[in-house]
Amino acid sequence: MELWMIAPLAALASIVVAAYLFVYVNKQDSGTAKMREIARAIQEGANAFLKREFLYLTVFVAVVATVLTIFLPNGPIMGVAYIFGSICSGLAGYFGMIVALKANVRSANAAKEGLNKAFPIAFRGGAVMGLSVVGLALLGISVVYYLTGDPGIVLGFSFGASAWALFAKAGGGIYTKTADVGADLVGKVEMNIPEDDPRNPAVIADNVGDNVGDVAGMGADLFDSYVASIVAVMILAVGLAPGISSFDNPFVNLPLIFAGLGILASILGVAIVRVGKKGNPGKALNWGTYITCGIFIVMTLFVTLYLQQDIETWAQSSLESSLHPFQVWGALVVGLVAGVVIGITTDYFTSIDRAPAIRTAEASQTGAAINIITGFSYGLVSMFPPLLGIGIASGVAYGLAGVYGVGIAAVGMLSIVGMIVAGDAYGPIVDNAKGIAEQSGLEEEVIDIADRLDAAGNTAKAITKGFAIGAAGLTVLALLAAFQEISGATGFDLMNPLVLTGALIGIAMPPLFSALVMLGVGKNAFTMIEEIRRQFREIPGLKEGKEGVKPDYATCVDIATKGALKELILPSVLSIVVTLVVGFVGGIEALGGYLGGSIFSGLIFALLMANAGGLWDNAKKYIEAGAFGGKGSDPHKAAVVGDTVGDPFKDTAGPSLNTMITVMSLVASVFAPLIVMYALL
Amino acid sequence: MELWMIAPLAALASIVVAAYLFVYVNKQDSGTAKMREIARAIQEGANAFLKREFLYLTVFVAVVATVLTIFLPNGPIMGVAYIFGSICSGLAGYFGMIVALKANVRSANAAKEGLNKAFPIAFRGGAVMGLSVVGLALLGISVVYYLTGDPGIVLGFSFGASAWALFAKAGGGIYTKTADVGADLVGKVEMNIPEDDPRNPAVIADNVGDNVGDVAGMGADLFDSYVASIVAVMILAVGLAPGISSFDNPFVNLPLIFAGLGILASILGVAIVRVGKKGNPGKALNWGTYITCGIFIVMTLFVTLYLQQDIETWAQSSLESSLHPFQVWGALVVGLVAGVVIGITTDYFTSIDRAPAIRTAEASQTGAAINIITGFSYGLVSMFPPLLGIGIASGVAYGLAGVYGVGIAAVGMLSIVGMIVAGDAYGPIVDNAKGIAEQSGLEEEVIDIADRLDAAGNTAKAITKGFAIGAAGLTVLALLAAFQEISGATGFDLMNPLVLTGALIGIAMPPLFSALVMLGVGKNAFTMIEEIRRQFREIPGLKEGKEGVKPDYATCVDIATKGALKELILPSVLSIVVTLVVGFVGGIEALGGYLGGSIFSGLIFALLMANAGGLWDNAKKYIEAGAFGGKGSDPHKAAVVGDTVGDPFKDTAGPSLNTMITVMSLVASVFAPLIVMYALL
Repeated sequence: MELWMIAPLAALASIVVAAYLFVYVNKQDSGTAKMREIARAIQEGANAFLKREFLYLTVFVAVVATVLTIFLPNGPIMGVAYIFGSICSGLAGYFGMIVALKANVRSANAAKEGLNKAFPIAFRGGAVMGLSVVGLALLGISVVYYLTGDPGIVLGFSFGASAWALFAKAGGGIYTKTADVGADLVGKVEMNIPEDDPRNPAVIADNVGDNVGDVAGMGADLFDSYVASIVAVMILAVGLAPGISSFDNPFVNLPLIFAGLGILASILGVAIVRVGKKGNPGKALNWGTYITCGIFIVMTLFVTLYLQQDIETWAQSSLESSLHPFQVWGALVVGLVAGVVIGITTDYFTSIDRAPAIRTAEASQTGAAINIITGFSYGLVSMFPPLLGIGIASGVAYGLAGVYGVGIAAVGMLSIVGMIVAGDAYGPIVDNAKGIAEQSGLEEEVIDIADRLDAAGNTAKAITKGFAIGAAGLTVLALLAAFQEISGATGFDLMNPLVLTGALIGIAMPPLFSALVMLGVGKNAFTMIEEIRRQFREIPGLKEGKEGVKPDYATCVDIATKGALKELILPSVLSIVVTLVVGFVGGIEALGGYLGGSIFSGLIFALLMANAGGLWDNAKKYIEAGAFGGKGSDPHKAAVVGDTVGDPFKDTAGPSLNTMITVMSLVASVFAPLIVMYALL
Repeated sequence: MELWMIAPLAALASIVVAAYLFVYVNKQDSGTAKMREIARAIQEGANAFLKREFLYLTVFVAVVATVLTIFLPNGPIMGVAYIFGSICSGLAGYFGMIVALKANVRSANAAKEGLNKAFPIAFRGGAVMGLSVVGLALLGISVVYYLTGDPGIVLGFSFGASAWALFAKAGGGIYTKTADVGADLVGKVEMNIPEDDPRNPAVIADNVGDNVGDVAGMGADLFDSYVASIVAVMILAVGLAPGISSFDNPFVNLPLIFAGLGILASILGVAIVRVGKKGNPGKALNWGTYITCGIFIVMTLFVTLYLQQDIETWAQSSLESSLHPFQVWGALVVGLVAGVVIGITTDYFTSIDRAPAIRTAEASQTGAAINIITGFSYGLVSMFPPLLGIGIASGVAYGLAGVYGVGIAAVGMLSIVGMIVAGDAYGPIVDNAKGIAEQSGLEEEVIDIADRLDAAGNTAKAITKGFAIGAAGLTVLALLAAFQEISGATGFDLMNPLVLTGALIGIAMPPLFSALVMLGVGKNAFTMIEEIRRQFREIPGLKEGKEGVKPDYATCVDIATKGALKELILPSVLSIVVTLVVGFVGGIEALGGYLGGSIFSGLIFALLMANAGGLWDNAKKYIEAGAFGGKGSDPHKAAVVGDTVGDPFKDTAGPSLNTMITVMSLVASVFAPLIVMYALL
């Protein structure tokens, strides 16, 4: 048996464990009738969105698959791989949502019996998502690879996953912030009713948004990076030993083996995470990550030792004849360590108890404008450590094992994605749990527990975002190398005018994309606000909370759904079309520059927006905890403005950029053979 | 006589005309005793700042000159050239300030007799600055070149001018916004007294700020780009015909000739600009620019025809043997046209009567946060046209005449800087004039005229900023080529890990720089606000405006001065030191990547900040003109928050970035010979 078969086996194991955890979550008590009713409303809203989104996406997938089939050399197979990638990515998101929508209410109910009862339900709910993502991703790759033996076809699978992720992330991001901003501005600010109050017509849409944006969106995002990193390395590996069948090339198989081991480590990590009655759920999540990393490093070390002889033999017959197995392993570890370090620095810049958040809170005393300037400035500073980290990691990985090493570093960073997504999906689950607890009027202590679970979710989320951006950064660099490999370009020299012009256009794309989705949020929020105001005005007894009077949740859900789907089309299509235009007009070199430029500015804005957004959020929370006048004071109002600006930054525009630059890189690689033949210049 | 002597002669002519205009401005009536008193206070404040700034700078210049003298191969001459560059840049700024501080009060006084009397005083005041900048710059270059015959030494002159500009721009920018934000937040928001009210203790500091930030700062900025573009082309020209004396190489002399013609065109343009009694001063300024461009294009066409034979002969013996004279001229025109187009698109994104500003004003109805998001989003979109413009211009210029063409395009864009600076310096002069008119209680009609003059200044300023960024963009690209030429690198391939790691560090630098200066503004504004509040609290009768009660202006001026100088040191020194560290550790390739990365992100943030800032300003003005509830309404308050965020964006951080990336490029080129020898990797 080939050792790379560890990949599909681990993937299957992952899916089995996910199914087991799903059953576990499902059989928990879903609480009172009131709680079940709220949970059902959220579920229905989420289903409504997903249904419509899937409809749109099916059309999109069909169109792209047809284009691929007609135009590409090996068109029909690429088309099928593309569709398969979309389906796997969609399924992972769908499973994650289903379980999240069950775990939220069950976790809220279990909070009645204490933190240590509620935590595992929420975390295992998240783990279903995490393990589904890596399981379906790696299984999908393995199947395509097994059937075709051609990493070039796996690229089609990756493109399918990415294009789907772009829609899911951008659409979900616009949805969630439309609902959030609308609910907050009318509810909290104008009507002065608390967050998650059942009188607010947008409250269900807001809860739905947490799921479609943070669960399904983030899952699709990491699914996409995970697949792309593996396929990029496989393609680079083919270049290392040209003329040799992929199955016989251990460099092609290594990323699959490492990814398989990463899944096993994640399963162990998930099993280990637990928290005591008085425990700290945030710490438990972080320890889970560290332990997973440790297990992964040890496992890969043993496998590298085991494969040492093979790799050495093989290195002899490849272009990297001097490559020692431990150099590959070193690149893997460098990537993983860089991911963790980037996560930790992100944590510093966004944590509630660190200087940046505290100073931003302090600046709120001189008004909203200074709060914005201060938070924005720290956001700008915060990109230095991760960019340096990505720079050093890619440099060291290259030094160890060439461009192949850069790809392996990305795989290393992404290997523990199962665990990372588990911690991340935990966030919206407990956020929802808190909402359900409040809307169904549970006791103070229960809400308090829900609050503590939620706070841990926010920290985990900040780290995950930094991690996701770092991983996307290394992945797109590996993809750029893969693009060079496929297109046969000798390099992308900045002094070449085509590369330079391409780069100048490329750097303008991520900002354009961000702007379009944020303007989309603004436009939709406007409609949403009008609707919420209308309901408060026209439904008698709503504002007073009269018994039996209920707002019309469905209309708000519908506005968010339609608006999000409408607004995501232009930016998503643009990022594909402009890439093709640059390629077919300017040729491979212009396209390489374009990709390089978009990677640079994509990283910049992703980091800036994620970190500044998280920072503003926590500066507000710092004031709410009693500093500088506390809740309701002028500094608090100023900090709320910052938080509202940060919302679309961190939950809509910022995180979509990872996916956007991956999609652009994949489009370039998939169409490279055509561009080489037909480019204008 | 050599034809390039047209450069020093035109430069001298420029200085003579500037002196003549200075005399013209100076002999105008400076108004009532009250007006003279206010003008004197502004003058004293400005002098206090300049004195202290010059002191700091002298130390800095001495240190750097010593370093250059000790370490560089041709150290002593470079040190002298460096000092000379600093002096010329400083002198241009100083002259500009002196005349601006005279023109403001005289223009205010002339406004009593009508728009057509006040306009020429303000505009000619600005023209003194414009003509001093180009005159001193080109004269300085010519002298250094004449004495040494070595463009490499002219590089030292350019470095001196740039380092000075960095301090002047960053320091002036921090100063002006410290005073502005402080004066606005306490005066307008807390105390509810109008802008430019003499009771406000920070009002003089605010008026001083307009001069040290906008006049001296912008002058130094364009001085710096202007010199750098010319020297970059000279160095590239040396590479075209190696082994031939520079004086005999027409490619070295061409940029000097073109720059000299640009000065003559600017002098004519300045002479032509005038406005009728009911005229539109904004249109007059724009027409002045267009006419100057026209004259320049025609002049250069004739000179190209005249030189055709020479250039062709010379092209034969150079590495660009197929270069036709009209290809050079074409590159020149492409640059100029691109500059104008970038200015016009900037105008679209920031103008009060265009969709972006109106939509942003509209968004203010849903609060400050949505105003910020909308303005920021349009700012992100606004970078697309100029980046595309720079990309196409550099691509076409390269296609016409290689890297030499890219440099010539930059020279083309900057050739009319005399006129551009004249229009730009007009802005703060009339802004001050308006302030003086209000503080000295002139009649409504006079203030009205001052208002109209001021509005024209704002439009001119927006266009100039776009122009300055575009010019800086092309200039640093030319400098990157010059750096490659000097260092002997074969290229900067993004797939080279050193280049890539350098680029990732490079893209993080401009954001870091912006953040540090903005945080500096925040910190200083805090101190300033405390002081203003203290004065209103402790000086009896101040708030009520009791006869004879005056605030303590000097302390506010002092706070702004000390704070600005303290806060500019870290970012300025960092941008030099990190460049050297990257160079000496990573070597030439890492440094090339670093410069490329910093150019990309420098352009992005410069465009974003300048345009979003201008947009927020005009969205606020749109509401003040009566839309969406007008002055004092909730939307207006929301728009004021946006405007305050935009202030340090557009007047502090954004415009300093041009200078920062130029300084980094020049540091790299100056130290390239040492880096080649001693780099670690």
